[in-house]
Amino acid sequence: MNAAGTMRIVRTVNELQAIVNPKQRNGRTVGFVPTMGFLHEGHLTLVEHARRDHDIVVMSIFVNPAQFGPGEDYEAYPRNEQRDADLASAAGVDYLFIPSVEEMYPNKSTIRILPGEQATRLCGASRPGHFDGVLKVLLKLFNIIDPDESYFGMKDAQQLAIIETFVRDFNLRTVISRVPTVRETDGLAKSSRNVRLTEQERSEASAIYKALSLGKKSYYDGVPLQEVEKIIRTAIEKDTSGTIDYVTALAYPSLDENFSEAEEVIIAAAVKFTSTRLIDNIIMSTIKDEKND
Amino acid sequence: MNAAGTMRIVRTVNELQAIVNPKQRNGRTVGFVPTMGFLHEGHLTLVEHARRDHDIVVMSIFVNPAQFGPGEDYEAYPRNEQRDADLASAAGVDYLFIPSVEEMYPNKSTIRILPGEQATRLCGASRPGHFDGVLKVLLKLFNIIDPDESYFGMKDAQQLAIIETFVRDFNLRTVISRVPTVRETDGLAKSSRNVRLTEQERSEASAIYKALSLGKKSYYDGVPLQEVEKIIRTAIEKDTSGTIDYVTALAYPSLDENFSEAEEVIIAAAVKFTSTRLIDNIIMSTIKDEKND
Repeated sequence: MNAAGTMRIVRTVNELQAIVNPKQRNGRTVGFVPTMGFLHEGHLTLVEHARRDHDIVVMSIFVNPAQFGPGEDYEAYPRNEQRDADLASAAGVDYLFIPSVEEMYPNKSTIRILPGEQATRLCGASRPGHFDGVLKVLLKLFNIIDPDESYFGMKDAQQLAIIETFVRDFNLRTVISRVPTVRETDGLAKSSRNVRLTEQERSEASAIYKALSLGKKSYYDGVPLQEVEKIIRTAIEKDTSGTIDYVTALAYPSLDENFSEAEEVIIAAAVKFTSTRLIDNIIMSTIKDEKND
Repeated sequence: MNAAGTMRIVRTVNELQAIVNPKQRNGRTVGFVPTMGFLHEGHLTLVEHARRDHDIVVMSIFVNPAQFGPGEDYEAYPRNEQRDADLASAAGVDYLFIPSVEEMYPNKSTIRILPGEQATRLCGASRPGHFDGVLKVLLKLFNIIDPDESYFGMKDAQQLAIIETFVRDFNLRTVISRVPTVRETDGLAKSSRNVRLTEQERSEASAIYKALSLGKKSYYDGVPLQEVEKIIRTAIEKDTSGTIDYVTALAYPSLDENFSEAEEVIIAAAVKFTSTRLIDNIIMSTIKDEKND
């Protein structure tokens, strides 16, 4: 584990592969935290888990062009390498991998990974090609690092579900760990994109989690999920100036529209503000009775 | 290395992963030969190379349903496990992985790998989806086994080119080794599918390599590649009862139609007989002068 100040920044694939070479680990295990940087407490909580579980903690910071569509916020995505390096070091990261786009994508590659059915809903419907890009960069990072365990926050629940399917179906060796969403005191899910909200929007944005919580309470009071969606939607419309992209209830992690066999259900929302789009979700255990329609 | 008779047959992913666990190799290296079985001298040559280069040799035998299209020969593909096990053992394979379809594909998975531009030509054009299936099974096998080096025959040159691109672009750790095509005395490329030829077709099939060789000679005599294609095509039509699927010259390994920058060119042919389709190719160093059009 990194004593504060001994973190090493690595910029090339070759260097990182040499450092974490699986043949030279001598029994030490590697925990991996992939990020797009502009670190917040959510990311640092992932690092905390990795430090607790493993000898070596690797964090990657890479704003992945492959997962941004035309018209999205690739250029505007917040970046601050020095701030990130300080936070990562203080949190106990051992190796901070910050490759350039050229380093990660040196060749014009036309091989793609299509994420399948789980990507046809929620953000996959709003952002076609997004999860293709996520799987592409993660397969590369998993191959470069060969982690024992990789940590992902529940805020990006669809991403997590797709990654779990990918790891299972292609026999990747890393364990995938789900870490609960970290929130501000008013409930807003921590996110790098929160910095792109105006002051007014930031105060409104807490309504998203409040609406989801109201939805959860309604569900456990016996309201059917289709009604629960409407309750959440109405609350967000009433309390924010944002435009709703989606408010959807699905089985989790399958993301099927058919809940009947599901043990868990996700209620998820995406709301667009003037310069950014926020997402959030709550995962709930299902109530198995006729109220499930 | 396996002393004859000590080969172990493995049927489950879990068992194989435990055996070849990268953390327990103690400096030993793993050479991997993926096959669809019904072994011939071509496969055994791959094993010979793996034995020469590595401490542990793993061979897989799996007729992969994902790489057979509707109307293709998945059911008719030749299979003989006992014969294969005897041959593999005698050749020095240490672990022979023979999983069931259920073992390799236990879940209905909708995640796909699209092989990109290299798959738009040659067999990729005739067999849409074929190379998706090849990459899917290979990614799984590479993840299960984590080989140091994996061996492929040049007869399947397009497959080899696509795999090299895949390994490069996704940072897979295995080295990919190209092994020259093994041929019968009359030049026919060794292939499991040769057993599906009638006696008459078997004697005609040697014309394919003869035609490619004539094409090669013509090229080095200064004939332009477009003419070379016609020479090969004419020879195959004259000397076999088969139907030509394609006769094509492309840059190698890019498989581009533009040769101008290429160091190597592939001349490739695919010919359909009554119950099977044969492919073959020759890779040639390019002559860099105005004769290249």
